[in-house]
Amino acid sequence: MALLRSYVSGSWHTAADEGVPLHDAATGEEVARISSNGVDFAAALEYGRTVGGPALRELTFHQRAALLKALASHLREHRDELYALSARTGATLGDSKFDIDGGIGVLFSYASKGKRELPNDTVYVEGNVEPLSRGGTFVAQHIATPLRGVAVQINAFNFPVWGPLEKFAPAFLAGVPSLVKPASQTAYLTARVVELIIESGILPEGSLQFVAGSAGDLLDHVTAQDLVSFTGSASTAQKLRAHPVIIRNAVRFNAEADSLNCSILGPDAVRGTTEFDLFVKQLVTEMTVKAGQKCTAIRRAFVPAELLDDVASAASERLAKVTVGNPASEGVRMGALASLEQREEVRRSLKALLDAGSVVFGDPENVTVVDADAERGAFISPVLLKADPERSEPHEVEAFGPVSTLMPYTSTEQVVEFAARGGGSLAGSVVSADKEFVRAVVLGAAPFHGRLLVLDAEDAKESTGHGSPMPQLVHGGPGRAGGGEEMGGVRGVLHHMQRTAVQGSPAVLSAVTGRWVAGAPRTEGVHPFRKSLAELRIGDSVVAGPRVVSQEDVDHFAEFTGDTFYAHTDPEAAAANPLFGGIVAHGYLVVSFAAGLFVSPEPGPVLANYGLENLRFLTPVKVGDSLTVTLTAKQITPRIDQDYGEVRWDADVTNAEGESVAKYDVLTLVSKEQP
Amino acid sequence: MALLRSYVSGSWHTAADEGVPLHDAATGEEVARISSNGVDFAAALEYGRTVGGPALRELTFHQRAALLKALASHLREHRDELYALSARTGATLGDSKFDIDGGIGVLFSYASKGKRELPNDTVYVEGNVEPLSRGGTFVAQHIATPLRGVAVQINAFNFPVWGPLEKFAPAFLAGVPSLVKPASQTAYLTARVVELIIESGILPEGSLQFVAGSAGDLLDHVTAQDLVSFTGSASTAQKLRAHPVIIRNAVRFNAEADSLNCSILGPDAVRGTTEFDLFVKQLVTEMTVKAGQKCTAIRRAFVPAELLDDVASAASERLAKVTVGNPASEGVRMGALASLEQREEVRRSLKALLDAGSVVFGDPENVTVVDADAERGAFISPVLLKADPERSEPHEVEAFGPVSTLMPYTSTEQVVEFAARGGGSLAGSVVSADKEFVRAVVLGAAPFHGRLLVLDAEDAKESTGHGSPMPQLVHGGPGRAGGGEEMGGVRGVLHHMQRTAVQGSPAVLSAVTGRWVAGAPRTEGVHPFRKSLAELRIGDSVVAGPRVVSQEDVDHFAEFTGDTFYAHTDPEAAAANPLFGGIVAHGYLVVSFAAGLFVSPEPGPVLANYGLENLRFLTPVKVGDSLTVTLTAKQITPRIDQDYGEVRWDADVTNAEGESVAKYDVLTLVSKEQP
Repeated sequence: MALLRSYVSGSWHTAADEGVPLHDAATGEEVARISSNGVDFAAALEYGRTVGGPALRELTFHQRAALLKALASHLREHRDELYALSARTGATLGDSKFDIDGGIGVLFSYASKGKRELPNDTVYVEGNVEPLSRGGTFVAQHIATPLRGVAVQINAFNFPVWGPLEKFAPAFLAGVPSLVKPASQTAYLTARVVELIIESGILPEGSLQFVAGSAGDLLDHVTAQDLVSFTGSASTAQKLRAHPVIIRNAVRFNAEADSLNCSILGPDAVRGTTEFDLFVKQLVTEMTVKAGQKCTAIRRAFVPAELLDDVASAASERLAKVTVGNPASEGVRMGALASLEQREEVRRSLKALLDAGSVVFGDPENVTVVDADAERGAFISPVLLKADPERSEPHEVEAFGPVSTLMPYTSTEQVVEFAARGGGSLAGSVVSADKEFVRAVVLGAAPFHGRLLVLDAEDAKESTGHGSPMPQLVHGGPGRAGGGEEMGGVRGVLHHMQRTAVQGSPAVLSAVTGRWVAGAPRTEGVHPFRKSLAELRIGDSVVAGPRVVSQEDVDHFAEFTGDTFYAHTDPEAAAANPLFGGIVAHGYLVVSFAAGLFVSPEPGPVLANYGLENLRFLTPVKVGDSLTVTLTAKQITPRIDQDYGEVRWDADVTNAEGESVAKYDVLTLVSKEQP
Repeated sequence: MALLRSYVSGSWHTAADEGVPLHDAATGEEVARISSNGVDFAAALEYGRTVGGPALRELTFHQRAALLKALASHLREHRDELYALSARTGATLGDSKFDIDGGIGVLFSYASKGKRELPNDTVYVEGNVEPLSRGGTFVAQHIATPLRGVAVQINAFNFPVWGPLEKFAPAFLAGVPSLVKPASQTAYLTARVVELIIESGILPEGSLQFVAGSAGDLLDHVTAQDLVSFTGSASTAQKLRAHPVIIRNAVRFNAEADSLNCSILGPDAVRGTTEFDLFVKQLVTEMTVKAGQKCTAIRRAFVPAELLDDVASAASERLAKVTVGNPASEGVRMGALASLEQREEVRRSLKALLDAGSVVFGDPENVTVVDADAERGAFISPVLLKADPERSEPHEVEAFGPVSTLMPYTSTEQVVEFAARGGGSLAGSVVSADKEFVRAVVLGAAPFHGRLLVLDAEDAKESTGHGSPMPQLVHGGPGRAGGGEEMGGVRGVLHHMQRTAVQGSPAVLSAVTGRWVAGAPRTEGVHPFRKSLAELRIGDSVVAGPRVVSQEDVDHFAEFTGDTFYAHTDPEAAAANPLFGGIVAHGYLVVSFAAGLFVSPEPGPVLANYGLENLRFLTPVKVGDSLTVTLTAKQITPRIDQDYGEVRWDADVTNAEGESVAKYDVLTLVSKEQP
């Protein structure tokens, strides 16, 4: 069989030695051989830093997002080929979709987040401008810029497609090149995905490198600008975290490790309720999808003591219907573990767990299989245990296969405490229709969890389930789960960037961020609404007014709109209002008049006002007050796929004393060229 | 002299042994003795977790903020006593203010941030609701809850007041108890601050513990729910980061270490410019404040090659005027280093630096002092060096005293690269009036810095300076600077909390977060504007309308407000608009009519509409469209110091087809009780 190639320093590398064989999980046949012999890891990292990084940093977030989208579409076209290869890892078609479609879904999601939530720019501006002085000449702004190194991504065997892609997508969007090193066992599938990516030519050269085989001395060469993200066992995570170079250089290290995730059935969910059925169904699904080889799978199932027997029998009934066998065969519900070694590992862990409990369903040593050889393939029966939750084993020993343990509890406080005994988990779930119970459990268990799912009759149909990390949501957990955090939408992008507080004058901050900051110079001249996106510059502004607000205006606006709130209409009652002490103009009148002042009515580049943000009424407007508005272009965002873009304007409405009466951002769409 | 006491497990602990003497930095006299002998660290941590944590978590963010404010005021009353004690650390009055007033300032700042930027609640809700399904029954929300452990805070000797307080304030606000362990050298000052705090009785018991002396086996007992924050040398940071228990439990570890911070003079800032003078003045200030014992001090000063001699002579001139001596004496500009050991350390580092350069000003071995004995006190002269920036020493050897090195550069790219050679810094500064240069340097150096200051004629008067970390801004830096992050306003609070993605139905998320989530049930009945804050519940809503928008309404609104934008007034031009294809009603008209529909005019608990957020016009409103508005109480925030609070309402304006035409949040102030 073929020796898997690495893709490093701009070319495909084939090891000089023969490599180690990788076996089909279901048949035991050799699928490929693997070796990273001869890979120059220091050179690969340097190549990423000097070729991939600069190429990526040339692109805006929106451009990177568009490439991610193109890549996702490209991979989607090759799904069938990937499914076939995936079956050799022991995965059923359902499992393969979970991995492959899931990974492609992460690319699409990040493409969409990048376009909607990140600027069409290379610098990310975070949070508000922080005033640091009374006079306003000294302010600050946090920015995020891509780290100048390589994101080293060390992945686990169980998700050969999703794993690498969920780490790659946020790194790429951040502008940081990736070096992907999958676990050997299933690396042939990752290798094929990487081939498809490299051959497509969609990505800038150097933005993705790939190592098939051992990581060699890779970590000896990481610097403070590189990152290391690891998914796998807690023990390997600890070894890597303590690596002397990672320690010495304070390298950003993220670990996502197996954890003893729990699912909790509410006391309300007795047999016969929808929630009871949902709990049992989800438990069996989590045990059997990917043959339980999911770091998010349910290992600990807590049920009210009085429901334990009901749950045990209902789950056993369902488990009895799970057909185990050749993952490529019709009707097979659960395939093989990834390798025979993995099965040995699971059986060892089961022994430890059985010290603290007993088997409810399944036989760790025997299983009936369809279309396969139960010994040559890494098959194992789903095994449901029950145990005493006061014992430590069920909270500490993870059997990384189709194994879960049922445990009884007797009060809300107790089950929250049991959940915490896992020492930190990636995911947990509560299945209950009792909102009081749900709130208590979620808030009690949250400090120990990266993600918590609440399942009930209302969301069950659309729920993505206990075991599915979502690209929009953080994935990771404290303590045993590795103490890390991946994805979470833009959060995952920012994990790859350095946050820097920049202090200076408003003019300097405007120059650095490309966004106009209050206090920076304004440019008056041609009305900015007459300028196309190409002509407009931040700071372009118009000062319009004054317009005096009369008693008739206020009366009329009240009558016309129906907004006859007493503070606008009843002098006596308004006088008693503790904030106004008399008639005030409607806030809506103020912003409407302001628009009347700043608008440039004739057709031109400004197409529409699509929104308003951060409007604050700062000073009451009284009858006779004279309003002036200053509108200033604050942020200009061309859309890469439209002939217009977004312009955010700073609006400041002042009275005759120069006090701001209202401040807000006006959001408009503006043509790139003059019509 | 007195043996410093620890405050652990609810009482003052005096060591059984005699302790180690601590000496006055300027006179060499013994100030106090220190020992943590007999402190039960495991018990102290458990006390924090079981007594301090629960007490803190009972309080809302606003209540904690109020306590921080009270604490700040209390300490401010005792400043003079603290200044006097501070002089014994070698600090001049100016230095003492930097430390003591700075620390109190952090408390005030966090009190203010807590009140303005955090909810009056115990759960922090982060970011938007994430839609996870088409039908809207399955959504998610990130929340943050306090970690259930103790924030172990190990501080450096140079800021005995600011250091502990800047770590304590965000932990306290987060709801996490602190255990403070200062460096021994200056611990008598921290000890006095802690006494003042404990004696005041302002804080809930268990929220602050204090260890005078060695940390003993403290770190052997930390769990995944505890945090360790360290400020000090890079080598100690590495040791702690690799501590087996920290590694095993994936304990959140934050390090803030000395770094080789740079200051860069722009090529425009030749002798005679304001920026030239600012650069020189700042350099001398940073060298001499706290006798240069600031982790943010300028160690590397990069100047255009052609300006090196000018800067050297101007800086030397200023340095010659710096009087060194008894910090308590009038007219003394620079006091002593913290200890004689510290002086030895600085002299050792100077030797290494001198291998790569030469002295511009000062004598490492001799200094003239005022009112003091130059040998018994830890005095040293400010020493300015110049060196070849191609040598490694100036980028790697830190003399933690009044020492800086001048280095020449010849291009923008080069100086950015030199800045990066520091391997990661806490703070950098650029002194220039050339915005192009500033932008290039800031964006180039940002990935290597936690904070960057741009100093010019415009902000100089109000600038807080290169060396001052600000509570609003992140403090920390990558690589050599420790790879950590402290403060940064609310960011520093969130560092002490676990972020959890909660998935469920809108009703479940509303129950968990206490905020109404779109799609959750609404309650109609009494108009919610008739309800006081005490009576109002999230989900309370009013549906009002319909109101048909007529041609006359649009024409009239245009005329009345002056907003005659062609899309509202010119049928032919409006038809050509690519987004509308015909006359549309003004967005401001839509929200004004909506207010007219939902308002309840008579005097009542609703006092004012103080703002609007996230307004989006989603569907154009055409003449003849009929508008209905649904207003729903989304978030209720009582103010702890007022008889009213804030209510955020969800406003959804729909047309006859049920499409949303505008969505936004209405912000109101509502009385706690019926008037």
